[in-house]
Amino acid sequence: MKRLDSKDSTIYVGSKQPMSYVLAVITQFQNGAKEVTVKARGRVISRAVDVVEILKNKFMNDVKVGKIETSTDIVKGEKGDVNVSVITIPLTK
Amino acid sequence: MKRLDSKDSTIYVGSKQPMSYVLAVITQFQNGAKEVTVKARGRVISRAVDVVEILKNKFMNDVKVGKIETSTDIVKGEKGDVNVSVITIPLTK
Repeated sequence: MKRLDSKDSTIYVGSKQPMSYVLAVITQFQNGAKEVTVKARGRVISRAVDVVEILKNKFMNDVKVGKIETSTDIVKGEKGDVNVSVITIPLTK
Repeated sequence: MKRLDSKDSTIYVGSKQPMSYVLAVITQFQNGAKEVTVKARGRVISRAVDVVEILKNKFMNDVKVGKIETSTDIVKGEKGDVNVSVITIPLTK
């Protein structure tokens, strides 16, 4: 899923504290990324929204939130396939 | 927060099963709503995304997802104010 274009990058939100991902986004912008996409799946979707809100309100007031998209991933599990929701939040400066 | 215009309505996602909210949205459209907004706060934000994905993939393939917005509510708690993220997902047929 990683893009080759170094000007774009994706931060996958997982189980760490929101601030870890906030700092990861800031670092990407400081390294010259024009667009940083925050992506999360399942229960941590709410954390991805927290990351964007913390970033917007406390660290990068000028960040622009693009078109937020939702989708569904099919995850193969022991008990068959499970549908998991995905959120994609594109950010630009 | 409820609007007086009967053509619009908001479904607040809470701790029930996603299907409860899916059915609530379908009912609103069946009652003539032109736009139904799915709203959630904090940890249940991921459930709001599940609701929209289930609706889109299983019950209303023609539903259109509008501009998804995120914001922050300040909730007064015993230990001071707490910031809680909010997601707003507008749906139209």
